[in-house]
Amino acid sequence: MESIKPYKKSADYSYTLGAFPTIELIQSKSEKVREVLVHSTFTDTKNLEELCHKNQIPLHIADKQIARLSDKENVFVIGIFEKYEQKLDGQNSQIVLVNPSNMGNLGTILRTAVGFGIYDIALISPAADVFHPKVVRSSMGALFRLRHQYFESFAEYRAQNTNQEIFTFMLNGKRTLTVADCPKPKLFSLVFGNEATGLDDSYLEAGTSVIIPQSPDVDSLNLTIAVGVGTYLFTQGNR
Amino acid sequence: MESIKPYKKSADYSYTLGAFPTIELIQSKSEKVREVLVHSTFTDTKNLEELCHKNQIPLHIADKQIARLSDKENVFVIGIFEKYEQKLDGQNSQIVLVNPSNMGNLGTILRTAVGFGIYDIALISPAADVFHPKVVRSSMGALFRLRHQYFESFAEYRAQNTNQEIFTFMLNGKRTLTVADCPKPKLFSLVFGNEATGLDDSYLEAGTSVIIPQSPDVDSLNLTIAVGVGTYLFTQGNR
Repeated sequence: MESIKPYKKSADYSYTLGAFPTIELIQSKSEKVREVLVHSTFTDTKNLEELCHKNQIPLHIADKQIARLSDKENVFVIGIFEKYEQKLDGQNSQIVLVNPSNMGNLGTILRTAVGFGIYDIALISPAADVFHPKVVRSSMGALFRLRHQYFESFAEYRAQNTNQEIFTFMLNGKRTLTVADCPKPKLFSLVFGNEATGLDDSYLEAGTSVIIPQSPDVDSLNLTIAVGVGTYLFTQGNR
Repeated sequence: MESIKPYKKSADYSYTLGAFPTIELIQSKSEKVREVLVHSTFTDTKNLEELCHKNQIPLHIADKQIARLSDKENVFVIGIFEKYEQKLDGQNSQIVLVNPSNMGNLGTILRTAVGFGIYDIALISPAADVFHPKVVRSSMGALFRLRHQYFESFAEYRAQNTNQEIFTFMLNGKRTLTVADCPKPKLFSLVFGNEATGLDDSYLEAGTSVIIPQSPDVDSLNLTIAVGVGTYLFTQGNR
C-alpha cells in the first residue's frame, strides 16, 4: 500500500470520500480503482468486500490514511482511483457549464444531470476540477455515471458538437421557459454561466436564449436550481 | 459601538455577511437593523450610506470587527440585526421543511422559494437555525423577504394551517409529478424531508404523496433541487 497524499490537481489519481460514492465508483469504473481504504470501526463491509473481491481491487484497513485524507469529515471508506479523460457522445443531449467555480455546486449539478437523464457534460475552462474530492463527494458518485469533457472555449465545444440545438440560460434571455411551452428539440444543449457572472451577452446569439421566470424579489436563482429546473423541463417535455 | 461576538443561537441578534444581503436586510427589515459595519477598503459605499441615513441606521468603519466575524471569507460589509419571530400567513401557499439540517441548503431553499413566489416557510424542529449567518448568506437575504415559523411537529403546523392542500415529496410517493399533469390546487403546502432521511412513511397519509421522476442511476435528487423543481411546477402550473 503506497502512501496517499492530500489531493492535488496535478496528481494522476483522486479519491472518493464515503461508502456510497466509493460503491458507485466501483460499479461504474472498476478498472480505474487502485485500492479501497476502510476504517477499522466500519461495520457494513460485506457488500464492499464482495465488490472489491469480484473486481480484484485491494481493500485495506487504514485508519491513519483515512483520518489524513478525510479533512475533519466523518468518513469510513475511501476509494483511490486513476483520473481519466473522456469525449462527449455527440448523439446525446448535453449540458454545458461555462466557467463553473464552486465545487459543491458542480457536484450537485452532475448528480442532477444524471438524475434527469443527461449523461454528457461539457465544461468550458476555466472551470472547477471534476476530480476534486469535494466535487466527487457532492456528486454522490454521479461523476462516474456520465461523460465529461473540458474545452478551452465555447467555440471549441460547438465545433465538436454540432447536432444539438443550443439554449442559453440568461437573465436577459428572450424566451420565457414555461411549463406549457417548453421547446421540444430532438437533441439539445443547455448552456449555463458562472455562479456570479452568468453568461455574457455574446451568448444571446449562440442559440435560443431563455429565462426561467422568477420573482423580482430575488437577484437570480442559484445556479444549481436553474440547472435543475431547466434540465427537468427539457427532459420531461421530451417524453 | 458595542463589541459584536461570533454568532450564537442563544443571542438575540445575528448578522448579514456581504453588501448584497445587508442591503436586502435594510430594504425589507430596516426596523430590525442595529448598525452596519463597513471595511475601510470598501469603495462602493454611496448606496449603502444613503440607505442607512434614510433609515437612521448607524454605519461604522470597523475593520477588526469584520475580520473577526467574517470567518476567512472576503467580506466588506456586515449588518447587525435583531432576531424576530413571525407567524405564517394562512391564506398563502407554503413550503414545509421537516428537519432540514444543512445550513447552506436551507439558505438556498429560502432564496428559491422567494424566487418562485412562495413567501411562507414552515420549519419542523429539529431544524437548522434560519438566523445563522451561513443561512442568511446563502439565502442572499431572501430570508428577510419571507415569513418563517418553527413548529414542534407537523401536527402542530397542520393544526394552525388548514387551508392548504398537502403534497409530500417522497421517493415512494404515489403520484408522479409531470410537466403535463401537475395538480393545480388553489392553495398548497409542499412538504420536504431531511437531506439524508427524507420523509418517513407516516407522510404517505398526510396528503397526496408525490415523486419527481428520476433516473435509476441516482439514489435521489439533492434536497434543494427537489424543492426547486417541485416549487417551480406548482407555482408555474397555477398561472
